[in-house]
Amino acid sequence: VRIALDAMGTDGAPSSEIAGAVAALRDLEPDIEILLVGDRDRVEEGLAVLSDLPRDRLSLVHAPDRVTAGDSPASAIRRKPNSSIAVGLRLQKEGEADAFVSAGSTGAVMAASLVLLRPLPGVDRPAIGTLLPTADRPALMLDAGANVDCKPHHLVQFARLGTIYAQDLMGISSPRVALLNIGEEPEKGDELSVETHGLLRESGLNFVGNVEGRDIIRGACDVLVCDGFVGNVLLKFYESVASLVIQLLTRELRRTGTALELDEVFRVLDYAEYGGAPLLGVNGVSIICHGQSTPKAIRNAIGVAARAVRSRMVSHIARELAQKSAHPEGT
Amino acid sequence: VRIALDAMGTDGAPSSEIAGAVAALRDLEPDIEILLVGDRDRVEEGLAVLSDLPRDRLSLVHAPDRVTAGDSPASAIRRKPNSSIAVGLRLQKEGEADAFVSAGSTGAVMAASLVLLRPLPGVDRPAIGTLLPTADRPALMLDAGANVDCKPHHLVQFARLGTIYAQDLMGISSPRVALLNIGEEPEKGDELSVETHGLLRESGLNFVGNVEGRDIIRGACDVLVCDGFVGNVLLKFYESVASLVIQLLTRELRRTGTALELDEVFRVLDYAEYGGAPLLGVNGVSIICHGQSTPKAIRNAIGVAARAVRSRMVSHIARELAQKSAHPEGT
Repeated sequence: VRIALDAMGTDGAPSSEIAGAVAALRDLEPDIEILLVGDRDRVEEGLAVLSDLPRDRLSLVHAPDRVTAGDSPASAIRRKPNSSIAVGLRLQKEGEADAFVSAGSTGAVMAASLVLLRPLPGVDRPAIGTLLPTADRPALMLDAGANVDCKPHHLVQFARLGTIYAQDLMGISSPRVALLNIGEEPEKGDELSVETHGLLRESGLNFVGNVEGRDIIRGACDVLVCDGFVGNVLLKFYESVASLVIQLLTRELRRTGTALELDEVFRVLDYAEYGGAPLLGVNGVSIICHGQSTPKAIRNAIGVAARAVRSRMVSHIARELAQKSAHPEGT
Repeated sequence: VRIALDAMGTDGAPSSEIAGAVAALRDLEPDIEILLVGDRDRVEEGLAVLSDLPRDRLSLVHAPDRVTAGDSPASAIRRKPNSSIAVGLRLQKEGEADAFVSAGSTGAVMAASLVLLRPLPGVDRPAIGTLLPTADRPALMLDAGANVDCKPHHLVQFARLGTIYAQDLMGISSPRVALLNIGEEPEKGDELSVETHGLLRESGLNFVGNVEGRDIIRGACDVLVCDGFVGNVLLKFYESVASLVIQLLTRELRRTGTALELDEVFRVLDYAEYGGAPLLGVNGVSIICHGQSTPKAIRNAIGVAARAVRSRMVSHIARELAQKSAHPEGT
């Protein structure tokens, strides 16, 4: 499994990426090879300080440009064709890599993935899936921000994409699909929710109905479907709540001189545990990581990418969605 | 200040309500009088076990019916005209009370308030405001669930309602108004957000721009405007995250035998601190509490109701909104 890793994505690039890559090669399956994509000099410099590198499984692909926060996501790929994002995705397109992992600008990775990998036939709008920690096992929420102003049939496609991800990567044979809503009854919610509820009931998926904001964290479903606007607000809010809680607690622990290993307690809330967020529905594997990803988060994202490749998730999606697209549902 | 308190609303009714009323009379300003509205026998029974009741400021109004979770919110007021919700609101309509506080079904209290108190002239859609704990002082989010499928001019009205609440009840002379969105730039978000952003900029309000999910908790604004769908999802999610965190921590504290006063640490996250959520834009004061309200939450909601009455918030809203409605904005 050959993974192209954007070495220039995180705030601490390229050292977080290099450390994550080395950890992946050390900890994960031995069939993984990593292509570090980024500025040659800076990556070489980062590698030089490390010893015992598994050089046979780690190589470097030069990409002189870097997409920054100032670049428009939509035009970044055209204006910077030699950025680490463009070069990394092109490696996959040309068969040199099986997957791409990046902690660069979410918008730019998404836009470039759509242009270079293309949506699969039958997929109108690829969606970002993200794992939300719950009291039980994590739930995949999608869309986490790739699409706003969705139509009901888009949400049904998200449900299909999420179901396949949960089957292939989370090992759940019949994932429970729920619709994020403001009430449990089918007639509750906005127009989008009411129509989507009806379509999901007829979808053949394991649809368990609406869930409210308070049910997510109880582990009420495996796949949570929503418009990218709501999903993005919720995801960012969740991350910030976790940090507020840790901030409040740390202050209190210091004040009272109490010792408590917070990392362990809040491990379940730690996004780094779950690796990156896949862009589902494109013809390839594209995993988007948080801009503040730690080496552990990068390592885990590489693990997610490798599992997606091994399970042939993309073929699975292509098969299922092309079939459904021959018998389209709703409008 | 005469407050009609629904004695039959919480899961622990009427004892939580009675305890909250007694606490309010003991702790808050001496001009407060409370009318407990509910089943006479059950309320009398609850009062009988208490001593030293300030009977001169606490009276009982009989309401034989109770709205339950099984009742349709829309028709509850018509089908149960003698419910504690209907009787309590009618007391205000007839001038026997200045405000109404209830922990009953949010939908039923809202629907009954709209029917019995009526929206103020110039208000198309009254909205539920709710205080979200932040690292700084709390922010008022609205709409928290009264309206879905909002138009841009509805959101601008929410911003006006929230601004007046923040001025009159939170003592902020020029409240910072923000639009909940998925990016900071004006062109980000769904159609609703982009149009609303433009209208808010021209509104004359202290509009500080878009805030993302992660900014809320940092205290980026005083009034946070959003569609009731997003607001409701976010509010319920917030409550559940707080309980998950406390659950995880309690387990760890027990396991390690560590002593730590969690209530104090998470006081900032405790909705009970902030009392109930006002339905803003109706011709009266209607405060909706959580169904699991503790006596402290009821007491604080009574305090909120009293402040709304004393500050003449309703006249203030009527004045501002009628003026704006003569010069309407957008569509």
